[in-house]
Amino acid sequence: MLLFDYKSYIPHLAIDCVIFGYKERELKVLISKLYFNGDIYSLPSGFIYKQEGIDEAAHRILKERTGISNIFLQHYKNFGEAERTNKVVLQSIINQNKEYFESEVNLSNEEFEWLTSRFISLGYYALVDMNKVIPTKTELDESMEWYNIHEIPNMMMDHKEMIEKALESLRLNLDTNIIVLNLLPETFTMKEVQDLYETIFEKEYARNNFQKKILELNVLERLEKKFTGASNKAPYLYRFRK
Amino acid sequence: MLLFDYKSYIPHLAIDCVIFGYKERELKVLISKLYFNGDIYSLPSGFIYKQEGIDEAAHRILKERTGISNIFLQHYKNFGEAERTNKVVLQSIINQNKEYFESEVNLSNEEFEWLTSRFISLGYYALVDMNKVIPTKTELDESMEWYNIHEIPNMMMDHKEMIEKALESLRLNLDTNIIVLNLLPETFTMKEVQDLYETIFEKEYARNNFQKKILELNVLERLEKKFTGASNKAPYLYRFRK
Repeated sequence: MLLFDYKSYIPHLAIDCVIFGYKERELKVLISKLYFNGDIYSLPSGFIYKQEGIDEAAHRILKERTGISNIFLQHYKNFGEAERTNKVVLQSIINQNKEYFESEVNLSNEEFEWLTSRFISLGYYALVDMNKVIPTKTELDESMEWYNIHEIPNMMMDHKEMIEKALESLRLNLDTNIIVLNLLPETFTMKEVQDLYETIFEKEYARNNFQKKILELNVLERLEKKFTGASNKAPYLYRFRK
Repeated sequence: MLLFDYKSYIPHLAIDCVIFGYKERELKVLISKLYFNGDIYSLPSGFIYKQEGIDEAAHRILKERTGISNIFLQHYKNFGEAERTNKVVLQSIINQNKEYFESEVNLSNEEFEWLTSRFISLGYYALVDMNKVIPTKTELDESMEWYNIHEIPNMMMDHKEMIEKALESLRLNLDTNIIVLNLLPETFTMKEVQDLYETIFEKEYARNNFQKKILELNVLERLEKKFTGASNKAPYLYRFRK
């Protein structure tokens, strides 16, 4: 079985995606456990078709792995050190799983060389509403799950660094815009926004100042009060202004 | 004559550099006029050796074209639309300069195909002290000169967009740090810093506020006064803190 038709892709170029989700004061990343011995984990990754734009490829890969399109997706950094290759990792995986590879994968020498050549990776991060995501495995994945940003498992190659750099970029971007609200459901309370910021920046904000600063950005629309039963204490709901 | 040994480079991948300089309230970009009919201009560009990191390649290209190393250089955006190729441009240049190409360049079919295939370009911008730069032509350049950011000539492919996006990134980065001081000579007055900011952002700043904001960044070291003859009105000189 061929894993993929490598000749249809641009060689030496990959896309790796750090997909951020958020739930109950936890920032999470979508990570797949590779279907092999050795507890090796990987970011959702893919290649670029010869006839496909790079952003287009990133959106396709995200859609394939999360089921959703119209995702907030941003390139943040390239990873292109000269010695960047997964030859050692892949060879060790193959050695540990000879039977599986011979019967199921049947990687030709050419395919192995292609896959383990030097790759320059275009790093993207995505901000998604976890409720809408259906994590989707490929034939290489044993599982695909959300991990707390503080409990990242043993990532292959430089994928751990990719997550760290993505988080840095996310924090930097937050100073000038509120893309981070893509992590929330369609409507949310101001307290939920504050929880989210506190989780990402790992610090606490004074409630009044925080509200004022967010409202001044003038991108939120106030809706009806959230129904809680105790109507006069109910918080307002907000959503992105259309 | 072979222009270059294309087989030593990673295919489909290029680096384009927007080199910013500054002089007398003008922001400038280093641009080469291609050595052909047709008034076509290009950013300094190059390819990545198979054994070379991407940032390393960008520094090498910058050094080849400006004579200086230890340059402030930053990746800001990838350009990777599916239809991004210079086949039409290069074919038209060749048609207009048949004699030159046949006698001097002698591009083989393979080389032509390689050069005109789809390229994903990694966009870098550099901030340099113009006094230190020696613009260096390649055999493809008729001239290599500084152009005012408001007088950019007829650029090939998407090079004009590259300049625009680089300027946007530069302005964004300025809000959080003062990398822009790389455009000034080693020592400078506060007025020179303000002139520089006013040129880049195309607006005026109140002198006292501006000084206060810059000094609060705590990255400048105050030196002796600049000698002007009228000693009690002489401005202080500053430089980056080591």
